[in-house]
Amino acid sequence: MVKKKTSKNKKSKPVNPQKKVSELRRDLVTGDWIAIATGRAGKPRAFIKEDKSRLDTDITKCPFENPQAHGNKPPLLLYKNKKHPDWSLQVIPNKYPAFGHMEGCGDIQEVGPYLVRDGRGYHEVIITRDHKKHLALLALGEVAEVISAYKARYLVLKEDECVKYISIFHNHGADAGASLPHPHSQLIAVPFVPSDIHRSLVGSNMFFRKNGQCVHCSMVAWELKDKKRLVFENEMFVAFCPFVSRTAFEIRIFPKGHRAYFENLPDKDIPQLAEALRASLAKLNKLLDDPSYNFFIHTAPVDGGKYPNYHWHIEILPKTAIWAGFELGTGIEISTLEPKKAAKFLRDVKI
Amino acid sequence: MVKKKTSKNKKSKPVNPQKKVSELRRDLVTGDWIAIATGRAGKPRAFIKEDKSRLDTDITKCPFENPQAHGNKPPLLLYKNKKHPDWSLQVIPNKYPAFGHMEGCGDIQEVGPYLVRDGRGYHEVIITRDHKKHLALLALGEVAEVISAYKARYLVLKEDECVKYISIFHNHGADAGASLPHPHSQLIAVPFVPSDIHRSLVGSNMFFRKNGQCVHCSMVAWELKDKKRLVFENEMFVAFCPFVSRTAFEIRIFPKGHRAYFENLPDKDIPQLAEALRASLAKLNKLLDDPSYNFFIHTAPVDGGKYPNYHWHIEILPKTAIWAGFELGTGIEISTLEPKKAAKFLRDVKI
Repeated sequence: MVKKKTSKNKKSKPVNPQKKVSELRRDLVTGDWIAIATGRAGKPRAFIKEDKSRLDTDITKCPFENPQAHGNKPPLLLYKNKKHPDWSLQVIPNKYPAFGHMEGCGDIQEVGPYLVRDGRGYHEVIITRDHKKHLALLALGEVAEVISAYKARYLVLKEDECVKYISIFHNHGADAGASLPHPHSQLIAVPFVPSDIHRSLVGSNMFFRKNGQCVHCSMVAWELKDKKRLVFENEMFVAFCPFVSRTAFEIRIFPKGHRAYFENLPDKDIPQLAEALRASLAKLNKLLDDPSYNFFIHTAPVDGGKYPNYHWHIEILPKTAIWAGFELGTGIEISTLEPKKAAKFLRDVKI
Repeated sequence: MVKKKTSKNKKSKPVNPQKKVSELRRDLVTGDWIAIATGRAGKPRAFIKEDKSRLDTDITKCPFENPQAHGNKPPLLLYKNKKHPDWSLQVIPNKYPAFGHMEGCGDIQEVGPYLVRDGRGYHEVIITRDHKKHLALLALGEVAEVISAYKARYLVLKEDECVKYISIFHNHGADAGASLPHPHSQLIAVPFVPSDIHRSLVGSNMFFRKNGQCVHCSMVAWELKDKKRLVFENEMFVAFCPFVSRTAFEIRIFPKGHRAYFENLPDKDIPQLAEALRASLAKLNKLLDDPSYNFFIHTAPVDGGKYPNYHWHIEILPKTAIWAGFELGTGIEISTLEPKKAAKFLRDVKI
């Protein structure tokens, strides 16, 4: 469920989690690892775009209304509340994982001039109960439950010695790659530190050596002082459209204090993070008429290293444009809206 | 025309090319430059996705049928042929440029903790005559004309001392960010070496130091020997689905011999490149029923440096999936098809 494939996917068989589900391959030039789902018998027709391939909103066919009745494994975590005494949130293994729990840590092997290794890891889905209420529409306590679940599963998976980085993310809407309309987040644990995270760590360390302070703290301090790009703040968190936005209406949420590790978020602070996340998503939802978006948590690796100069945060990227040939070929992203204008629009939205 | 914006764009005013059209801003953490089109008075409604916002195929409204009648500048380059005695191809300045020709080279300035500079450069559009015949459907000679135009404009723009890198790319289809259905490529010249190119250069140099040969030559040699991922080859060029593919059905085209600089492509070799590009696109077109795709040329910078270890090539990325939260948050791309299977399907397509 990481990627929206364009059709016919529902007919593919679930992958046996004991078998190899993917192969990691290292690019010869950049050194980046990518994953190839080698086990799938993809046919070209599965990749043909159907114009009407919007998300199927028929609730009677939704596999997340009753996940276990649709062949999913028992929940790894289950919350109940007064409104939903059966379950208000559950975490299950992804039926079509991109990373699987194989034996060993996935030793690196050579294939021709390339390095490859098994796609060893975990791929889980965090499902909220209400088919139609996506995160922007949930009550504060319900968003807090989602964040609690992120933290709880993160703490469990980081104990696996093969796991080096855990990515928590959420895709909303077909244009953002969601394959099911029922609201769900995902968690993928991988056996190496991803290239983007590695680059951020290197950048953070360089900034610290040069300036004697955390680069993210500098950024947050400047945004709090300048105020022009602020979207929302409470005592512990701040949400703003970054001065260097990758796309129009991008929002980042930071703990105001210096915090390297998401998993160390104290439980007592979760409601404040929920408030900041919910406010950001609700404002986007109202202003842009339920846009598709992705958000993800950037946090320090769990590979045993120390990352005192990192500072965890959430990045929300609404699908306000398509990265085309120029962006794909150069890495230069072009945003067609001044972040301070975007923030002003978002601040003015009453929620 | 770099990015598909979702609607209402046609009503925005063309930018005066003497005025600042964008501001480059450097990310504090990664060091990457992004561009913000600061001059545009974007309204939120311009970013709202309309479900029916497919490309308008009404030829009578097409601004590229007669570019100059639609307020475009005179051509910078114009080709004629027997079939089209008025013009078979023309290059014009982009009416809505992302980079513009301002005074000076765009000095770097400080804004708070950030570095910014003007989006100094060029943004041109390469238009072929036939509204309905996209590249995959053109005759060999017509594709050769397109490549000749790429080279001709590249050679002109590299003479500007402010220009450090020239990106040539092509977006086909709404899902790939094309804002107009009339076939066109684009060329953007920028005043710095983009981050992705910089990383490729660093990787190429590292590989050379370690192995004493060009990393791309190693890759090409292995693919030519292994044969499993080959899509097309002629005497001078080879097209294959790379072992480390970023997406299903990705194709890369390399000159078989070691060539660092695209602009040094001898005119006599252009028909062979046209043949490889046309074959690759025609096979994708037939197999995947006219998919949206992006392609771009990766070549060495024009900043005065020497890049003997680089090797220019074309990357074709069909839109067979959406990069969602995991890809955006980690840089790990997941391809759901084995490249050798993709290549077999493509080889089997008769064109």
